[in-house]
Amino acid sequence: MKEVKGVRIGNNRSVDELVRELRGCSFGAGRLAKAVDIYEEMLKEETTKFMGIAGALVPAGMRNILAAMIRERYVDVVVTTGANLVHDIIEALGEHHYKIGGGAEKNADTAAVDDVWLRAHGMERIYDVVLHEEAFIKLEEFLHGVFDAMKRRAKGCGINELTKAIGENLSDRDSLLRSAVDSDVPIFCPAIADSMIGLHAWIYNQTAELRVDAFEDMKELIDLFCEAKRTGAIILGGGVPKNFIFQTALIAPREEEGFDYAIQITTNTPENGSLSGATLEEAKSWGKIGVKSDAVTLYCDATIALPIIMDAVRARIAR
Amino acid sequence: MKEVKGVRIGNNRSVDELVRELRGCSFGAGRLAKAVDIYEEMLKEETTKFMGIAGALVPAGMRNILAAMIRERYVDVVVTTGANLVHDIIEALGEHHYKIGGGAEKNADTAAVDDVWLRAHGMERIYDVVLHEEAFIKLEEFLHGVFDAMKRRAKGCGINELTKAIGENLSDRDSLLRSAVDSDVPIFCPAIADSMIGLHAWIYNQTAELRVDAFEDMKELIDLFCEAKRTGAIILGGGVPKNFIFQTALIAPREEEGFDYAIQITTNTPENGSLSGATLEEAKSWGKIGVKSDAVTLYCDATIALPIIMDAVRARIAR
Amino acid sequence: MKEVKGVRIGNNRSVDELVRELRGCSFGAGRLAKAVDIYEEMLKEETTKFMGIAGALVPAGMRNILAAMIRERYVDVVVTTGANLVHDIIEALGEHHYKIGGGAEKNADTAAVDDVWLRAHGMERIYDVVLHEEAFIKLEEFLHGVFDAMKRRAKGCGINELTKAIGENLSDRDSLLRSAVDSDVPIFCPAIADSMIGLHAWIYNQTAELRVDAFEDMKELIDLFCEAKRTGAIILGGGVPKNFIFQTALIAPREEEGFDYAIQITTNTPENGSLSGATLEEAKSWGKIGVKSDAVTLYCDATIALPIIMDAVRARIAR
Amino acid sequence: MKEVKGVRIGNNRSVDELVRELRGCSFGAGRLAKAVDIYEEMLKEETTKFMGIAGALVPAGMRNILAAMIRERYVDVVVTTGANLVHDIIEALGEHHYKIGGGAEKNADTAAVDDVWLRAHGMERIYDVVLHEEAFIKLEEFLHGVFDAMKRRAKGCGINELTKAIGENLSDRDSLLRSAVDSDVPIFCPAIADSMIGLHAWIYNQTAELRVDAFEDMKELIDLFCEAKRTGAIILGGGVPKNFIFQTALIAPREEEGFDYAIQITTNTPENGSLSGATLEEAKSWGKIGVKSDAVTLYCDATIALPIIMDAVRARIAR
Repeated sequence: MKEVKGVRIGNNRSVDELVRELRGCSFGAGRLAKAVDIYEEMLKEETTKFMGIAGALVPAGMRNILAAMIRERYVDVVVTTGANLVHDIIEALGEHHYKIGGGAEKNADTAAVDDVWLRAHGMERIYDVVLHEEAFIKLEEFLHGVFDAMKRRAKGCGINELTKAIGENLSDRDSLLRSAVDSDVPIFCPAIADSMIGLHAWIYNQTAELRVDAFEDMKELIDLFCEAKRTGAIILGGGVPKNFIFQTALIAPREEEGFDYAIQITTNTPENGSLSGATLEEAKSWGKIGVKSDAVTLYCDATIALPIIMDAVRARIAR
Repeated sequence: MKEVKGVRIGNNRSVDELVRELRGCSFGAGRLAKAVDIYEEMLKEETTKFMGIAGALVPAGMRNILAAMIRERYVDVVVTTGANLVHDIIEALGEHHYKIGGGAEKNADTAAVDDVWLRAHGMERIYDVVLHEEAFIKLEEFLHGVFDAMKRRAKGCGINELTKAIGENLSDRDSLLRSAVDSDVPIFCPAIADSMIGLHAWIYNQTAELRVDAFEDMKELIDLFCEAKRTGAIILGGGVPKNFIFQTALIAPREEEGFDYAIQITTNTPENGSLSGATLEEAKSWGKIGVKSDAVTLYCDATIALPIIMDAVRARIAR
Repeated sequence: MKEVKGVRIGNNRSVDELVRELRGCSFGAGRLAKAVDIYEEMLKEETTKFMGIAGALVPAGMRNILAAMIRERYVDVVVTTGANLVHDIIEALGEHHYKIGGGAEKNADTAAVDDVWLRAHGMERIYDVVLHEEAFIKLEEFLHGVFDAMKRRAKGCGINELTKAIGENLSDRDSLLRSAVDSDVPIFCPAIADSMIGLHAWIYNQTAELRVDAFEDMKELIDLFCEAKRTGAIILGGGVPKNFIFQTALIAPREEEGFDYAIQITTNTPENGSLSGATLEEAKSWGKIGVKSDAVTLYCDATIALPIIMDAVRARIAR
Repeated sequence: MKEVKGVRIGNNRSVDELVRELRGCSFGAGRLAKAVDIYEEMLKEETTKFMGIAGALVPAGMRNILAAMIRERYVDVVVTTGANLVHDIIEALGEHHYKIGGGAEKNADTAAVDDVWLRAHGMERIYDVVLHEEAFIKLEEFLHGVFDAMKRRAKGCGINELTKAIGENLSDRDSLLRSAVDSDVPIFCPAIADSMIGLHAWIYNQTAELRVDAFEDMKELIDLFCEAKRTGAIILGGGVPKNFIFQTALIAPREEEGFDYAIQITTNTPENGSLSGATLEEAKSWGKIGVKSDAVTLYCDATIALPIIMDAVRARIAR
């Protein structure tokens, strides 16, 4: 065991300088520093990096960073929720999210607003973010155009082909979906039915035909894992993306079982028994994480942790 | 506002008698009582009841209650994670889950066990539950048999048809999947790819062909919502099931917008911005929950709340 | 390891019958059952039972149960926050707490109310409970009367003598403070300065003299621990009461080091490093809990867990 | 409402540059930026700044920053738990805290260690920190020396005089207690009995006499509040320090009721009804926070948030 070596107050430090000082701390501070160190090692080694994205990170303002991570290949494979893709498209189409309490009023500590009022005024809420329902009308038009084009292209496809087709129809460089196309990073979204994309695919299928297979793209994900020299997982927020990434390790034959590196950033804790909050140690019992892996769980709002980690990582390893 | 009327210490009360007394309390106690009152009203009215199940409720010992809720039609539609179905099948096949700290040792307050040791001994862990990897071999054999039968039956199908086919091949009355078949309750599982069922479907597809469409079964879910006289949601634990149930209300034309009743039992809180922790008030801004709905969120481990709620509800309304 | 044996749906079960069935479950359900079993054993053995109360349990409606636990000697020593004593006195003086959302409106899922409006209307809020500021005027008059009497009685005293003097001036049998006097259960409140009682003691001291020593009553607490045949801790919600009870074990010479039994009910988790969320395992490293102790942490809102536990315990061991 | 303007990936940014970019974000990121803006405004105005410290921030490595905040008068008044003072003294006496998992082993994601083993080897644990029991022997000797000196100095005193006397006997500039003496910042610790300092004061009182009054120092705290031009609260982690600071506003006559500024950093949420997790909005209903105050709650591990906030604040306003 090493001495706790406390962080000193800074004098206009860079983010990475701060993070290096946090190495001597315990609790969340020490874990934040360790997350950066593990990420740095992942990048130095020839690692295939799988990122899971759950939680409304795009509406909260993390879209540019996530897109840059894809574009600059800080990650090589993405598994996400449908909601993050929906909100990525909405911004790519020129619509915006709005911040409750970001305006003139001084007192908006809480996210308390009257949701019935919002409903009456055509606004939908995600914690302290709202957006106008017009954004979803634009989304609908856009998606039906994509579906039309896809229908002509293929009889049946995997969900990753659908996300790719969407990305090809967007031109916004700050889009996750567009960046993924440009950088050849596949985006998996196993629960895509559970999103506006799913709803519109269903509506579309009432009059036309769009065949998307539920299991088709698992082969590509598993191949990516099998063929990797080393494997790393960056899990933002748990949910389906976490398990979908980890379960790949259960079936993929590799010399060393399980992921070699894992970073988990979550506000869930193990005590409720959920997979989102499950420790990476537990993942070892399944063979999802290697018994000799380098792994850390950081209990923190990802909107705070991610910008810090990426500033520090990029200062160490520009790509 | 009503006076807080404290609960008195009991004298061999029934569960329902206790819950009735909690009506006068605030905090979680008052919410638990309100959840039962809302459920009672749902059952008295002609309500189509949608239950979402996320979190490892089956491994934790809630399988019998969940199956009984389906069998006795306390719920009419189920949306769940793949994991709960996997563990339901495993028990139906005669395999078991085991409780860490349930044996002789007196000190097992925490779930702390050595996961590397578990791995070496062929045991997988879910918080304070473990199971043997042999269970998954049985699961594999069983699933491949089901897939063989399905292949002969259909060219392409929805995920709900897959869950139904699985249920038809089980004979255990305490199984969710079997109970659902017997009681004509559809089980939806939009993220089924994110489970051992998904992994085995993929393996199966390497040599045979099993076509499961990602969006096919949305029509049935939406129809169930549209055709309902009144609509109720019982959300255990958030995740994909929560959103998949609620998004149905976004697209389904009804006179009164959104669910009429909603009960949410979760250990997630709104402050991290996740959908799992989002308030039911927020759901009103989307039209997922009716602005005049009767709704409550209960912040509690569902393994504690569910048995209490079902005892109390059943004492009031036997079916 | 024992098999998980799931709980079945009830048929008008008593609370204790339900809890007995939960013994076979994992997660919170299993821990709830274990908490009752440990409490039962505490009561069968000749155990001195120390209860810590933090969190606004009195305003939430747990006052009657807590008072009954004291009156019927389910506990022998109480350590609490000043706030619970303040609200106990307020109710004993005939004032009430009121439940937000307990009235006519159907939609009050959240505790969202306008606190500025409450302020303007003379109401103070505790989550989903409010009370009128008049209650605090009655409190002030009452306390100054008590202080006057005490001043004549003693030159300097411990905080436990102050709580006792308060209890002697109340006549409400449902009061914790009165019940403690009647049953000879001492109430410790180390952070009493951090409450309205403290504020009024300070005001009183501006013109009169009331000498209360910060450390005086530690001797009595330590003696109670030392002289106990066996020792048990029931910790509701962490905070100062948790540590104040446990630290007693650090200094008190006993044959077997640390508490023999411990039940902790909390919604805090260990991951933030707080003492409130610290595991009972961690307490063993300090010698606060015996290495052979029988202990369980239940992650649950105490307003839900406490009535259940007390119903079950009392069904097993009436006093 | 303003548009969410996402943070871009950095290019060796300073901490303050990052924080400024987070202003456009929502969720925790936006709140972190707002916390710094509020702190900046506090410092620009002539504000008396009250800091509450709960949670084991000193053992976790925040001691230097907290001491610097005191020394450089980023705060003017401190209210803390006894534990933080105990661990501050221990480090000032040359003893250390040690980090579990900070050494050679790669796999230590969790804080899982065998506490019975630690007990046998004379080590006490605080989440992922341990210390040797020898540290407490040094503490004892030191404290008894301080008590001896105090006894000669005064017949009865307030708790703040005790903390001052301790600080005067330490020479470590990185000590909170020493820095407070040097900078004339009073340290209040209303629950000091609930700490090793309290235990040793009691032991000392068995043979000698040390009179510390429970309410004596409230006058000084209230005077500091009353005489302030403007008032600000920086609450790290809730607990007794949070309430003790806020309750001062209940009794202190000022033109504008309640604190003018408030920053709360906590991992507790309001849903359990605890004061630690209570919103600052709720505090307005009590008059603790001014209805026109500038306030934010940041849900984050303080060991992550505090170094970031202080780097950013200090870059803006050096002192």
